[in-house]
Amino acid sequence: MAMPAPDQSVIQRGPQIIAALRAILPGDAVIDDPQETRAYECDALTAYRCPPLAVVLPRTTAEVAAIMQTCHRMGVPVVPRGAGTSLAGGALPTADCVLLGTMRLRDVLEIDTDNRFIRVQTGVTNLSVSAELEPHGFFYAPDPSSQLACTIAGNIAMNSGGAHCLKYGVTTNNLMAATVVLTTGEIVQLGGPELGPDGLDLLGLFCGSEGQLGVVTEATLRILPRPEGARPVLIGFDNAEVAGECVARIIRSGVLPVAIEYMDEPCLRAVESFAKAGYPACSAVLIVEVEGSRDEIADQLARIRAIAEDLNPVEFRESRNADEAAKIWKGRKSAFGAMGKLGDYICLDGTVPVGQLPFTLRRIGELSQQHGLEVANVFHAGDGNMHPLILFDANTPGDLARAEAFGADILRLCVEVGGCLTGEHGVGIEKRDLMGDQYDPADLAIQMEIKDLFDPQWLLNPAKVFPLEASARFRQRAAE
Amino acid sequence: MAMPAPDQSVIQRGPQIIAALRAILPGDAVIDDPQETRAYECDALTAYRCPPLAVVLPRTTAEVAAIMQTCHRMGVPVVPRGAGTSLAGGALPTADCVLLGTMRLRDVLEIDTDNRFIRVQTGVTNLSVSAELEPHGFFYAPDPSSQLACTIAGNIAMNSGGAHCLKYGVTTNNLMAATVVLTTGEIVQLGGPELGPDGLDLLGLFCGSEGQLGVVTEATLRILPRPEGARPVLIGFDNAEVAGECVARIIRSGVLPVAIEYMDEPCLRAVESFAKAGYPACSAVLIVEVEGSRDEIADQLARIRAIAEDLNPVEFRESRNADEAAKIWKGRKSAFGAMGKLGDYICLDGTVPVGQLPFTLRRIGELSQQHGLEVANVFHAGDGNMHPLILFDANTPGDLARAEAFGADILRLCVEVGGCLTGEHGVGIEKRDLMGDQYDPADLAIQMEIKDLFDPQWLLNPAKVFPLEASARFRQRAAE
Repeated sequence: MAMPAPDQSVIQRGPQIIAALRAILPGDAVIDDPQETRAYECDALTAYRCPPLAVVLPRTTAEVAAIMQTCHRMGVPVVPRGAGTSLAGGALPTADCVLLGTMRLRDVLEIDTDNRFIRVQTGVTNLSVSAELEPHGFFYAPDPSSQLACTIAGNIAMNSGGAHCLKYGVTTNNLMAATVVLTTGEIVQLGGPELGPDGLDLLGLFCGSEGQLGVVTEATLRILPRPEGARPVLIGFDNAEVAGECVARIIRSGVLPVAIEYMDEPCLRAVESFAKAGYPACSAVLIVEVEGSRDEIADQLARIRAIAEDLNPVEFRESRNADEAAKIWKGRKSAFGAMGKLGDYICLDGTVPVGQLPFTLRRIGELSQQHGLEVANVFHAGDGNMHPLILFDANTPGDLARAEAFGADILRLCVEVGGCLTGEHGVGIEKRDLMGDQYDPADLAIQMEIKDLFDPQWLLNPAKVFPLEASARFRQRAAE
Repeated sequence: MAMPAPDQSVIQRGPQIIAALRAILPGDAVIDDPQETRAYECDALTAYRCPPLAVVLPRTTAEVAAIMQTCHRMGVPVVPRGAGTSLAGGALPTADCVLLGTMRLRDVLEIDTDNRFIRVQTGVTNLSVSAELEPHGFFYAPDPSSQLACTIAGNIAMNSGGAHCLKYGVTTNNLMAATVVLTTGEIVQLGGPELGPDGLDLLGLFCGSEGQLGVVTEATLRILPRPEGARPVLIGFDNAEVAGECVARIIRSGVLPVAIEYMDEPCLRAVESFAKAGYPACSAVLIVEVEGSRDEIADQLARIRAIAEDLNPVEFRESRNADEAAKIWKGRKSAFGAMGKLGDYICLDGTVPVGQLPFTLRRIGELSQQHGLEVANVFHAGDGNMHPLILFDANTPGDLARAEAFGADILRLCVEVGGCLTGEHGVGIEKRDLMGDQYDPADLAIQMEIKDLFDPQWLLNPAKVFPLEASARFRQRAAE
């Protein structure tokens, strides 16, 4: 993935820029030692690396505002970063940027169970939000796999989901209000306590905007009472397409599980040899989890069993207690680790209509043969959010490029069947140049006009989201 | 509510404008006979009326694009209108505008139950969408009271809700994609089939934008399988605040009814004398409806009964069959009609955090005494979406102004307790000048900059949503 050449005039002014930042921030909040900035040179898309000019770690909205104002005045690009867990290169620095880390913005500001919200600084991690809520009997629904590390700032930037978003929606469905710092350093409040806001929905616009419009420093999140219980079942099929059909029938029936996870045969093989979860040897396994009171769980499981049994599963395994439930989840939770043992991989993130799952899985298999690279599928099937893992060898020259070409074909396939390029990882640098496959030039142009409105100098998180060529035209326009 | 003076230069060019529209549209699609344009002079905020210069009734996206292009070229304001059921004056014409009615855009384009969507032209009515889906066993969730008449175009413009939005969300949560015509006549596609879209969430931005950014001509709507059954209960309390507390406890408990409706004593009196629904004579009645399988319904009702009985209700009435269920809903559904018998009223629409309901209800009672005007409360309590009805006499000079002043005080109260100016009716002309109470100048300015980006001449649905004084400054800027 090409990155634009850094602005040498910014790099030359590095010492002045760092001095200006030191003048407005506490001593420990500005990092420019190359040994230390190296820690920020990539996110979870580790194939791309570039140390930033400097790293700033503010503790307050006021500090963020001061940083933004300074960088705006001096014409310095700013790359916001949560925990750096983006799989799409959403937080990849450029050599001429100030990387703005949110991890020290970690105060919990208010918990209001009556009105069902928590207000936090956005550097808190996703999991710690639910941990804060646990003594109150509540939880925060979006649960990305990276939830131990990833921050609310990153979740908002990427509109993150997770296994449970089938029932509870993604971040945008659980975000009530936000404090945002614009490029100029101006601080604005977006959203309100309930329902849609008055006027234009700027909160929705910011959610998923991948740091293109501003930096979110505080967020009010909707919280939910913890369900009385939850129970997973495992369903094995000896035919991948029938497993896809089972997902479609469950969704169509109106049962609403909290999660429907899908693992195909290559994934199952890797998982079995790694985690020994005791999964059946078959073509596809679904893990379906339902939540609620004892009666609700029993009722939903009975309906799911009836649907599955019509399709002759190899196995239908209910969990009778917490141990058995943990065992069912164990393999799924170790899937990414298990794949890592097999070699290098890139993890894709595309979404297709649920009814298109069987066709899409078959086509991915064909593409795998065409490109000569193995692929494993493990994903959130209930909402059609696929995560094909393409295996390659980073030490074989050209293998990464082949894997990327295969990945691009899969994402184009998602668009062709009526889906889109991302479910929850965002566009980042990874899918930037595929946006033209998803959108007509006119559709993309109005997105870029809005970006241009908020960031006329195009300083915020450069070279992400929009095709490089198109954003270069806008940057050119700004320079004239 | 003041409206800006119409642009006389547009009115003088009326004949040329109408000729230009006739040149691009079928004969029956342009109406300029004052006898006929009068039918469009107001929406459901009938205190304000103004016939438009002309009315156009396109049948296709291409016709809408041609109209927009022509009006843009000739500098003519365009007021989009669904069915004209807006209670906030969202579709009030100006004397210099072309009113663009969507009611002939009424084709159902596609029903896909596997992937759970329906695609329609936006002039179809809300209720007819669910009627189309009924043979398939599905429904469309948002259900405004006006659903027999109101269109999907209007629902999207206002981000409409309804009694059932407590469980299923408002329009923005059920809208997957849209075809939009911009001011210039350019046609763009927004959104995608599932989850959040790639890049910037322009679909969310359009939803609830009250015709300020473009005209939505086609929409892809999420559909849901019809639940097996639904059952309402009626709970009467002799203390309004305790009824509010009951709502808060139900929400906090994690039971998620599809609807929690609240009626206070003045409303109950009016409803009893009008509809004789057999409601108990008490201070407040809640109607709580749950949905699901027989077991799920029984389970939820048991939990609601336990919560209610802790609060000593005057009555807890379960419905045992469809007749009894209909009887419980009868009074609620006739509430607006019943209030109409008592005299003229304005129906407000503000939202407060659920925990603030008891305090807000008490303060509204005090404000009623202060302003010397009666008020009745009937509303969607589960999501804090209040609809106070202020009674006044349209034939008493000054009474409307007093009612409006009282209404403004109530809406400011909603903002003060952490709520907002609207739940589902939109801002329109009614709440336009209160936006400054909700938003800081900086927050409002970025909304207006986005409006300005999409509509630099400020021709689309003038004098709505934004404070008149502020929008005049933008219009001035455009003219310079």
